[in-house]
Amino acid sequence: MDIEQFRKAGYQAIDRICDYYYALQESKFTVLPDVEPGYLRPLLPPTAPEAGEDFTQIAEDYQKFIVPGYTHWQHPSFLAYYPAGFSFEGILGDLYASSVSNPGFNWLASPACTELESIVLDWASQMLGLSSSFLNSSGVGGGCFQNTASEAALVAIIAARSAYKASYPDTKLEDMRIYTTTQTHSLGLKAGVILGLSVRALEVTKEDNFSLRGHVLRSALEEDKKKGLHPFILIATIGTTSSGAIDNIAEIRSVAKDFPEVKIHVDAAWAGMALVCPEFREMCHLEDINSIADSFSTNFHKWGLTNFDACPLWVRDRKYLTDALDITPPFLRTAQGDAGTVIDYRNWHLGLGRRYRSLKLWFVLRGYGVEGFQKHIRKAVGLNETFVKLLSSSDMLSLCAPPSLALSVFRIDPRPSVSNQTTLPEDALNDLNKLFYGKISARKDIILTQTVLNGQFCIRLAIGSAFTQEAHIRRAFDIINHEAKLTLEAWEQPRIGA
Amino acid sequence: MDIEQFRKAGYQAIDRICDYYYALQESKFTVLPDVEPGYLRPLLPPTAPEAGEDFTQIAEDYQKFIVPGYTHWQHPSFLAYYPAGFSFEGILGDLYASSVSNPGFNWLASPACTELESIVLDWASQMLGLSSSFLNSSGVGGGCFQNTASEAALVAIIAARSAYKASYPDTKLEDMRIYTTTQTHSLGLKAGVILGLSVRALEVTKEDNFSLRGHVLRSALEEDKKKGLHPFILIATIGTTSSGAIDNIAEIRSVAKDFPEVKIHVDAAWAGMALVCPEFREMCHLEDINSIADSFSTNFHKWGLTNFDACPLWVRDRKYLTDALDITPPFLRTAQGDAGTVIDYRNWHLGLGRRYRSLKLWFVLRGYGVEGFQKHIRKAVGLNETFVKLLSSSDMLSLCAPPSLALSVFRIDPRPSVSNQTTLPEDALNDLNKLFYGKISARKDIILTQTVLNGQFCIRLAIGSAFTQEAHIRRAFDIINHEAKLTLEAWEQPRIGA
Repeated sequence: MDIEQFRKAGYQAIDRICDYYYALQESKFTVLPDVEPGYLRPLLPPTAPEAGEDFTQIAEDYQKFIVPGYTHWQHPSFLAYYPAGFSFEGILGDLYASSVSNPGFNWLASPACTELESIVLDWASQMLGLSSSFLNSSGVGGGCFQNTASEAALVAIIAARSAYKASYPDTKLEDMRIYTTTQTHSLGLKAGVILGLSVRALEVTKEDNFSLRGHVLRSALEEDKKKGLHPFILIATIGTTSSGAIDNIAEIRSVAKDFPEVKIHVDAAWAGMALVCPEFREMCHLEDINSIADSFSTNFHKWGLTNFDACPLWVRDRKYLTDALDITPPFLRTAQGDAGTVIDYRNWHLGLGRRYRSLKLWFVLRGYGVEGFQKHIRKAVGLNETFVKLLSSSDMLSLCAPPSLALSVFRIDPRPSVSNQTTLPEDALNDLNKLFYGKISARKDIILTQTVLNGQFCIRLAIGSAFTQEAHIRRAFDIINHEAKLTLEAWEQPRIGA
Repeated sequence: MDIEQFRKAGYQAIDRICDYYYALQESKFTVLPDVEPGYLRPLLPPTAPEAGEDFTQIAEDYQKFIVPGYTHWQHPSFLAYYPAGFSFEGILGDLYASSVSNPGFNWLASPACTELESIVLDWASQMLGLSSSFLNSSGVGGGCFQNTASEAALVAIIAARSAYKASYPDTKLEDMRIYTTTQTHSLGLKAGVILGLSVRALEVTKEDNFSLRGHVLRSALEEDKKKGLHPFILIATIGTTSSGAIDNIAEIRSVAKDFPEVKIHVDAAWAGMALVCPEFREMCHLEDINSIADSFSTNFHKWGLTNFDACPLWVRDRKYLTDALDITPPFLRTAQGDAGTVIDYRNWHLGLGRRYRSLKLWFVLRGYGVEGFQKHIRKAVGLNETFVKLLSSSDMLSLCAPPSLALSVFRIDPRPSVSNQTTLPEDALNDLNKLFYGKISARKDIILTQTVLNGQFCIRLAIGSAFTQEAHIRRAFDIINHEAKLTLEAWEQPRIGA
């Protein structure tokens, strides 16, 4: 393809993306595709072609075979998992970045990539109210993109393990322990299996809204130290995936001062974006995070208007990362790196090559401004308030945890007047709700996800697509209510017949 | 930004990318930017704006402040590191992929992303001549994108560690050992520091062209096992970064049969692309790789015409990965995943969310076809032959290792008739060549990288940009020759004056 063919195909791509978003705004297709596992293989040839093909045909096949197989994360009725970040500014940032293919692992490999990342993550850090200790301009702390929140936590754990081993070199890896809660994202357990280190998932209760309390952490640390184990890091969460639970960083702070060897990583993958609004900072324990977190991570590619991927990790001391990850063979040495006058970001993460992600975040931060971000967050939180109000009007449905920002977790829990039984036992309630979720997940016009909260099977509804409006939330509630009614009818049918 | 504003900004972006490539083809700017460390911060405001800004201004600032800070990896005179993959098809693939923001960690999260990845990596695997054991369609083995070759090797090591611990559960992590050579990319040592495992870098010699020999591996494994250590994986390389060395997989194969507990990962990050040409398969030991490699990785984002990132990892047994990496909390369960009828790629790599990379590789494979890939590889190898011929005509410059595909490693090593001394001692030669490299790297119109081969400081020239033609290689040689002459003159000056 030559430059003029690219121009033509590029214009066409832009037009098709416009068509897609017009259709999406008008819900001209369902959120879930109508395909079965294995749909694609029979549609494509078994091998790559021998001779190159014309892009016109490739672009047609894309529309014909691939687009019908997408789950539409930007659809107004996408309410599953957490939202996937999106903005037109983000797409444009990715497009310009892709066009220069700069794998900016060293400063010299792309001065602009490195410097823009250093600046834009300072912008982002300030916008979220993080301490100035985390600024790249501090020369001591700093921020760096990681691939995902999982890898940000992994890197934090590696840094903490390295720092611990530097202080206590005789510690056996088998005796080192990571702390999470039972509600921490799978990234905690996954880091454990990746590194071969043990993970203790601390119990949290419904009464505490699934939040980690200080006394629970303290007694676990004391107990494990007595056993000869070496606690070295806590992964605390602001906004768990299951229910949006917020660990009690204020209490953790008072425990942490007695265990200075235990590092603290704060994973705010989803909820971190809410810090852009001053009114959510206290509930998210921002002041305590600023006081004690060794590292902090949040995903602009979730609730932050930025296309995947855009996950910064900020650290209070950049040597925390580079002491653990700097490997510099001769072929990666540069005059600027040797002089220590530049950041070589490759020493801040797992891989060597790295994607150029700062450009899209720069575009997004400028395009929306702080006010645009605040409006986006407040809109989703407001829509969730609407959903919660609708839910509270139902005598079939109840919340399983307090609504958290733009997330609600609920299940069927019928009032005695609705159910034939006075109250259903927990096992039966779970079976009932699995049936309920089965009905919802059989639909293509909405998507929600399941979870389990301390044994209770429940359903999550997470708001955040840029295109979701109040009408979509009302319609989502109607669908949920309708399916709940059908579920209860089906549930009670055999009893009536019995 | 609304849809029509996006259309306008999108067209503009496409036009600007066209302008960029016209200018680049004509070498209207130098390969290295004319900026000093810290150039960008004074040019940008210290914080994100409060109110959103118009994209017209953002796009202007991009041209004004960011573009002048790029290192132009597609420049015809970019001859450093290894080439960065690029094609217009790749940019278009990234653009379409970015527009749907599908983080396809589960099949359900995006059926098209998962299925296209499974198919397109089968296309790629067949194109490179890999064994059918590595095909996703085999249902047993398969391929999956990782972020970079470093992470591919890391994942392979984690899988191998997990498999070893499953067979020998009492093994202490402290006693487990990874094998590489002194010429293996930093990914080997970095995986060691990430996982806290020891790495033994086996010595390789200039006489063996820096290739790992079977007897070296065998005696190291025997020696370490006698010491009570547990060898569990070898990272073998096809095309090292320093000199393009190819480990002797044929000999390794005969050693491996005596150490079945030692897994073998083949890292062919750069040279793997040469396998598309039948004439390079034997020198790359393809048959032996197909016979013994547990995993194999190569980067389409290096020499493979595909924009960063596109790094597949193929394994002979997918359970090798999933046994080590599958963590499935309730909120990630799906009916299709539970039924086992689909691939959930999140269990094949480190993170959870994942970029949608198969689309661009599909576009590139179709746009170029096998023939287009072969032409691209052969062109770069041919240009390197031209460079080697020019080099052999010089009485100042010598190769430090045999040319490998599209890579040459050389230094000043003056014939006695040129140097005032009969032969320079090794230390002096290194000082001379550091001076030489200093002169080359002070230029903005060309970029090469340094390396050290068993103590010899030398310079690498790696060809592979789509825009590099014979004239650029001839000009590169003229620059190198000119700087070598100046270096020798400067070197001998003090001697004459002494």
